[in-house]
Amino acid sequence: MSLQPPRGTRDFMPADMIRRQYIFQTVKNVFENFGFNPLETPAFESWSILSKKGGAGEEVKDEIYYFKDKSDRELGLRFDLTAPMSRVVAANPQLPKPFKRYQIGRVWRYDRPQAGRFREFWQADVDILGSSKMDADVECLVVAVKSLEALGFKNFIIRINNRKILDSMIKKVGINNSFEVFRSLDKLEKIGEKGVTKELISKGVSKKEVNSLMDMIKMKGSASDMLKKGRKMLKSDGFEELDQVVSLSKQYGIDKYIVVDFSLVRGLDYYTGPVFEVFVKEFENIGSITAGGRYDNLVKNYGGRDTPAVGISLGIERIYEIMSSKKMFKLPSINTQLFVVAVNDAVRNDVIKICQKLRDAGVNTELDLSGRNFKKQLEYADALGISYVLIVGEKELKSKKFPLKDMKKREQKELTLDQIVKKF
Amino acid sequence: MSLQPPRGTRDFMPADMIRRQYIFQTVKNVFENFGFNPLETPAFESWSILSKKGGAGEEVKDEIYYFKDKSDRELGLRFDLTAPMSRVVAANPQLPKPFKRYQIGRVWRYDRPQAGRFREFWQADVDILGSSKMDADVECLVVAVKSLEALGFKNFIIRINNRKILDSMIKKVGINNSFEVFRSLDKLEKIGEKGVTKELISKGVSKKEVNSLMDMIKMKGSASDMLKKGRKMLKSDGFEELDQVVSLSKQYGIDKYIVVDFSLVRGLDYYTGPVFEVFVKEFENIGSITAGGRYDNLVKNYGGRDTPAVGISLGIERIYEIMSSKKMFKLPSINTQLFVVAVNDAVRNDVIKICQKLRDAGVNTELDLSGRNFKKQLEYADALGISYVLIVGEKELKSKKFPLKDMKKREQKELTLDQIVKKF
Repeated sequence: MSLQPPRGTRDFMPADMIRRQYIFQTVKNVFENFGFNPLETPAFESWSILSKKGGAGEEVKDEIYYFKDKSDRELGLRFDLTAPMSRVVAANPQLPKPFKRYQIGRVWRYDRPQAGRFREFWQADVDILGSSKMDADVECLVVAVKSLEALGFKNFIIRINNRKILDSMIKKVGINNSFEVFRSLDKLEKIGEKGVTKELISKGVSKKEVNSLMDMIKMKGSASDMLKKGRKMLKSDGFEELDQVVSLSKQYGIDKYIVVDFSLVRGLDYYTGPVFEVFVKEFENIGSITAGGRYDNLVKNYGGRDTPAVGISLGIERIYEIMSSKKMFKLPSINTQLFVVAVNDAVRNDVIKICQKLRDAGVNTELDLSGRNFKKQLEYADALGISYVLIVGEKELKSKKFPLKDMKKREQKELTLDQIVKKF
Repeated sequence: MSLQPPRGTRDFMPADMIRRQYIFQTVKNVFENFGFNPLETPAFESWSILSKKGGAGEEVKDEIYYFKDKSDRELGLRFDLTAPMSRVVAANPQLPKPFKRYQIGRVWRYDRPQAGRFREFWQADVDILGSSKMDADVECLVVAVKSLEALGFKNFIIRINNRKILDSMIKKVGINNSFEVFRSLDKLEKIGEKGVTKELISKGVSKKEVNSLMDMIKMKGSASDMLKKGRKMLKSDGFEELDQVVSLSKQYGIDKYIVVDFSLVRGLDYYTGPVFEVFVKEFENIGSITAGGRYDNLVKNYGGRDTPAVGISLGIERIYEIMSSKKMFKLPSINTQLFVVAVNDAVRNDVIKICQKLRDAGVNTELDLSGRNFKKQLEYADALGISYVLIVGEKELKSKKFPLKDMKKREQKELTLDQIVKKF
């Protein structure tokens, strides 16, 4: 019997969990600061719900945890938080719009596990449902930037494109099947221009068509430059949207991060308008740590009302990984602040009383539960990484002054209980 | 395609989630106050791990979500938080002991869904691993009481027994298979004395044996009474443990809640010492809302070192249900505190600036994302249940005083932004 967690999953020990809880709490605060509220959905969904967003069909079963329950219901562990939310919004047309929800939780994909890639991982999503205005798209971007800033990151790159522009480009060069082109273009970074060209040709696109498309999407420049160039080349509502995104971003002071990139696709084929990826400049090589876009058809696809929608997803694992490796967490490895040592058995009841007094005052306090002697209690507190130890013996009980030992600095002070409460 | 969540599972809309998050945060604070730290484990475990605690074998597969992954690994969604934690502790012998961890999360059981019973539900557990002293057992009880008090409950009943006492009683009347007797006795409340008697006889226990056993476990009385009576009847280490639990409970002021009940079994067969159930007196009829006990063999069963252990589990669903039906939540239905209304399109950029100022000051603030007019913006804020609305027009921007409208009291005051920040 292996004692390891199942392949692709992880256990999180307390020191790790304290860091992860810090990330969750920090982004939650930012989400709520912007008027997003929490939604929760089950860990698994009907296969019919999952397949609707997966888009394609049976082959998606190979990429998720698919199973049947005892009544032969087809189920699957959720592979993202967008599909379940879209189901909820479709099922609840009475919700005032825009419906702004956040959800932080685990999702599962049956990927090949590799460095930084897991079968069980956490996402933190905000979505705005019911507004077709670019104000919603920009708010998502601002929330992403503010969340990352709150975690200690600065200087970002927001790569942005619009599906409508890509669509117009594809049509302009004379290609009909834009879905398949999206899929190939999405691999640009992975397999390069040559690879994409080869793949598109194999899909029946002519070399000439591919080349004209490549010329268009490869253009680089500032947002205003790209808009000017793009508009000269072709007509698309996407430019108007892009224009608005840039100009609204100015109001929030995040326009300086925007880079228009006509080659950006964002793999999933349900996007309908702006798509974006947020990078931390310093860690650009690691890839985007937040991404999203507009998907105006999804809720309708679920049988709901016509509901324009936009959202972003923070990649918790990547954030956690960078913050850990760059030592960005300024957190204790344990939430326990104080250990109260009983010098001998005679004072144990007094130690309980003192502990409870400190706990009631909000100090996270621990005491010996194992009948250990003085030295062993100190060793335990030290092994746990508790920063302070309070020593209680008959003498101290009489004088009402207790030595408070700083375990890192290896120094101690005599304090009354009230002084100790004040200190923490 | 049904838009309902899968059978036995639920969606939680924002107002519900705010309440559930409040419960999670409240008990988390109490857990940490007592020196417990967070652990997280995957949603699913190897079948070999789950079956080890399930105890029995193949039939457990019918009671859980069991499935195979693409590599034919046998997996199952966790049915509690104790089995995964025991695996982690067995796999990490280096952890300083006692290891005090909490875990709040979902578990899954393939039960028949019924009122208040779900296939996906949440538990909040604290466990202490590595101490055989009753100090640990009592700490678990204190944490349970303090958690429930923090949520607004008062006056409890702690039903307590000890497996060693039950074991001695069973042996004394001459029965050998205590496991099977535990299983039957556990149904006492459900099928009554007659039902249990019948079942035990069908299992091969003689009528006389059953009757003597029933006489013993039916005794009622105060803790000291029960201890006296019990000790007269038979010898058991369980009495000494019970004695210590009662006397340590006095130090924490929770002895007044203790009721010794020799008929208490706690179904699962891995308990080895004290077992307990905590009831809120006012809601005694609803059943226990917290329960646990000592299980000294579980970590060893997982192949780990000999690790005495005790823990409790708070039944989040039952707590949530009672608090909801008794209107115990004093919480807003939305975390958004303020909606800033743009009187017309000319002031929209100013509204963004004001919003950001308020957000940066920590006020959870929303603004119009849909290009709506004044009236529609107010209606939206009202529909969401946001308590305050701030009105921004050219006049207000000039005077730097803004009407803040209390949406419940239907009254308004003119305030500067600084005054508004101070108010929230």
